[in-house]
Amino acid sequence: MELHGKSILGGKTAASRGSRVFFGVAAATGEKLGPEFHEATAAEADEAMTLAENAFHEYAALGPERRAEFLERAAAEIAGLGGALLERAQAETALPEARLAGERARTVNQLNMFAQMIREGSWVEATIDRGAPERKPVAKPDLRRMLFPLGPVVVFGASNFPLAYSVAGGDTASALAAGCPVVVKGHWGHPGTSEMVARAIVAAAEATKMPAGIFSMAQGASNEIGERLVLHPAAKAAGFTGSLQGGRALYNAAATRPEPIPVFAEMGSTNPVFFLPGALKKNWAALAEAFVQSFTAGVGQFCTNPGIAIGREGEEWRAFIEQTARLAGAVAPGVMLHRGIYEKFRSGTGRFRQTRGVGVAGKWGGEAEGRAAAAVFTTDAKTFAGEGTLSEELFGPSTLAVSCGTAAELEAVARSLHGQLTASIHGTEEDLDRHKKLAGILREKAGRLIFNGFPTGVEVCAAMQHGGPYPATTDTRTTSVGYYAIKRFARPVCFQNFPEGALPAELRNRNSRNIWRVVDNEMTKADI
Amino acid sequence: MELHGKSILGGKTAASRGSRVFFGVAAATGEKLGPEFHEATAAEADEAMTLAENAFHEYAALGPERRAEFLERAAAEIAGLGGALLERAQAETALPEARLAGERARTVNQLNMFAQMIREGSWVEATIDRGAPERKPVAKPDLRRMLFPLGPVVVFGASNFPLAYSVAGGDTASALAAGCPVVVKGHWGHPGTSEMVARAIVAAAEATKMPAGIFSMAQGASNEIGERLVLHPAAKAAGFTGSLQGGRALYNAAATRPEPIPVFAEMGSTNPVFFLPGALKKNWAALAEAFVQSFTAGVGQFCTNPGIAIGREGEEWRAFIEQTARLAGAVAPGVMLHRGIYEKFRSGTGRFRQTRGVGVAGKWGGEAEGRAAAAVFTTDAKTFAGEGTLSEELFGPSTLAVSCGTAAELEAVARSLHGQLTASIHGTEEDLDRHKKLAGILREKAGRLIFNGFPTGVEVCAAMQHGGPYPATTDTRTTSVGYYAIKRFARPVCFQNFPEGALPAELRNRNSRNIWRVVDNEMTKADI
Repeated sequence: MELHGKSILGGKTAASRGSRVFFGVAAATGEKLGPEFHEATAAEADEAMTLAENAFHEYAALGPERRAEFLERAAAEIAGLGGALLERAQAETALPEARLAGERARTVNQLNMFAQMIREGSWVEATIDRGAPERKPVAKPDLRRMLFPLGPVVVFGASNFPLAYSVAGGDTASALAAGCPVVVKGHWGHPGTSEMVARAIVAAAEATKMPAGIFSMAQGASNEIGERLVLHPAAKAAGFTGSLQGGRALYNAAATRPEPIPVFAEMGSTNPVFFLPGALKKNWAALAEAFVQSFTAGVGQFCTNPGIAIGREGEEWRAFIEQTARLAGAVAPGVMLHRGIYEKFRSGTGRFRQTRGVGVAGKWGGEAEGRAAAAVFTTDAKTFAGEGTLSEELFGPSTLAVSCGTAAELEAVARSLHGQLTASIHGTEEDLDRHKKLAGILREKAGRLIFNGFPTGVEVCAAMQHGGPYPATTDTRTTSVGYYAIKRFARPVCFQNFPEGALPAELRNRNSRNIWRVVDNEMTKADI
Repeated sequence: MELHGKSILGGKTAASRGSRVFFGVAAATGEKLGPEFHEATAAEADEAMTLAENAFHEYAALGPERRAEFLERAAAEIAGLGGALLERAQAETALPEARLAGERARTVNQLNMFAQMIREGSWVEATIDRGAPERKPVAKPDLRRMLFPLGPVVVFGASNFPLAYSVAGGDTASALAAGCPVVVKGHWGHPGTSEMVARAIVAAAEATKMPAGIFSMAQGASNEIGERLVLHPAAKAAGFTGSLQGGRALYNAAATRPEPIPVFAEMGSTNPVFFLPGALKKNWAALAEAFVQSFTAGVGQFCTNPGIAIGREGEEWRAFIEQTARLAGAVAPGVMLHRGIYEKFRSGTGRFRQTRGVGVAGKWGGEAEGRAAAAVFTTDAKTFAGEGTLSEELFGPSTLAVSCGTAAELEAVARSLHGQLTASIHGTEEDLDRHKKLAGILREKAGRLIFNGFPTGVEVCAAMQHGGPYPATTDTRTTSVGYYAIKRFARPVCFQNFPEGALPAELRNRNSRNIWRVVDNEMTKADI
């Protein structure tokens, strides 16, 4: 595939009237990667949104089977891009090929999962209360409720998941599955990857005869174009994965619209890991090894990267920290996704080192030639409590070990944490008994609690919750990974006393879709 | 019960250190009603929120059975207030006793409904994906997800539902049922009613040994106290029913918090009713009678009041409008909830009359002695399209009949509408055939679609949707009436590889709660 470097507006290549251009950059070398990419103009952004709005009715009306075919075809087209996609993604992001191959598999699986989900159909929450015309003093109406798509959704590609949370990632897949047209703002960090995937989606849309406006992708290196998309009246929601600063800016912009819309932003998280004494006693060396693997994998560029370790003063805790530092020191420094992320990591580690009461465990080489070296910082609970910046996310392969004197101090650290995507506890059953309050405190802080495991590795399935209290996300009631992600992009509509023929299939007396429905407060698949 | 005129902070009567006082006002006469009410001070508002925060852990941990007992006791305590409650409410709001008795029944029923719902328990969306430790290349973790309460919720009492959407109304009932402490900002329009109901809740909380901080009620006539509650760090969500201006102000305030929180505001809606030709031909006189009943009931002070009627030019449509105006003219002018609402109605009808292209049907007496007379305005589709203010909510007993020349013009009017709580269609099956697009257009505009009926009368049940696109609400994905209202106040938490004993009952292998769960993608009540 020869890249054209232009935005894609409702299946067509943009005319590129804009004069702003930018290049993909090889993360490893800093060299420009061709071709020249044209930033979408304001008019092009508006056109994408208008096309999405115009396509919405038709797309929503197509029904789940047709949408499922489209999603499956999109999955196949992306898989069909073959090695060229991985090569381009690797050049743009410096992520290893094996990781990218895994990410592609996840991208394909997510599209297929949502296809399967809408084909099965129960996700629409069909709920029926039959009428009682004879009820006194007033007749009880017949009420039938189900979920319908919200409307056009703006999706922001994430730099750290150039496939699974970018152009055809979880946000796009769940929004398209719900019946919402999608306009993607491609991430400037991997514009070639974005174009390839966008064209695969367009090919799938054409092959399955979808309305053209259901998918667009606007390229751009500035923030303006994304904000313009979110502010367009046709936009009904936005999905974002990235920094707290970026997510909050979009949230703020959306909240000031004449018609405010939800921005589902997945942002910063330090993913604390609590190492309780019994677990360390049994297992400190193995835990150190697994922990280093978790916080240095992918050069620490996962949103579930464990940036804080908390333990109680003692021999094993010290041994654990020493071993962690030793193993981290042996991890080869890695190239980060792009220069900006690397610079942030560098200034962040510099800030840690200059903070009074924070030490560096083991020998830390710092950064060499633009590569990020894994770092283990240490501090105590008192310093941690007094220095707010220590609890902020530092994106990259570092972690901060916080030593606590007592169970109460450890609980106080837990209580002081911001909202998190995840929180982990390593412990024996006896440890849990001795720290009874800990799990309860963490349950109010995080979307996912992990026992004797590490947060990296996010299973895509029904029970997954990838979300959490602010600043982990802007809406803790939602998830961006797994089945429930589709609910973000749907709204309920209730039909009162509608004739059978005018009802959607899901709400008719005969349950032809064979879905689970709540009928007169009973869960059932039976016909009425 | 002798009223003390003070706020209630975690079960205790406030010390009333504040110097701002206000009175209840008899809606019918404008006379002051004793006692003097003390506006909560900023410190008292903060205290209420802190008490709620401190009570949250304990309340959430009590479990559904204890919470259900509390809700049922609250229902009984409110019922036990007897005639005194209705008398006070009638004096403060001028709503008829029969209406208030119905509203009290609804309030009691809502509390009992949510009690029943949490006792049954399936609302928590328990979802389990069992692990596969042998999976390659990485083990599949055991993941178990369910809903937990969000935290303290601020509820704003609505002036037009002094019982069912005020201190112990749907927002309070659903938040308490979810496990969230509630701090109510009482509406200044019915402070005595608010105090009586708040004390009934406190009595129920004491009788069932609830943590005291789970309920507070701050009195106040200014907006400051409500905003302060929403801005308090302990607040995790807010529920509001009222004007667009008030709801939007709270939404904006909440969006600018360091940690933004959702504000579920149910605001303005004109609830359009489409009268199609076949239905009018069969039935115009009966439709006019039912329509007048709908838009004048309760002096037009329902959020589902039908403020716009749309029909196609023709003999029957003209006869329908004439009959509607004739019947409306015979409705006795009514006292509105308070002077401010009446003044808004008066200036709104004045604005309508001064709008070029808008006429008054029949003889309209205007307002007499502070009472609102039912009004029927007429206009054509072109004027309606050109004059944006005509599509805004005018709270009170008036309606605007919009005449359209063609089906296309009628559809254009439908397309031009703002978001609505409801939209209604009167028609024969033939009418629906001839206006195929109409239902589809309205489905994107409203939360509830009504066929051959009127929007007033909101059934409280599982399938009800009381919500809709902005400006009807700030979050079209939610409802403020019915079973699903509880979901607004809950967030999912996922447990990964947790030992059975540390899991909540709903997620253990044995399904002791006998709830519906999704286990490995299958809906089931079976044990694991």
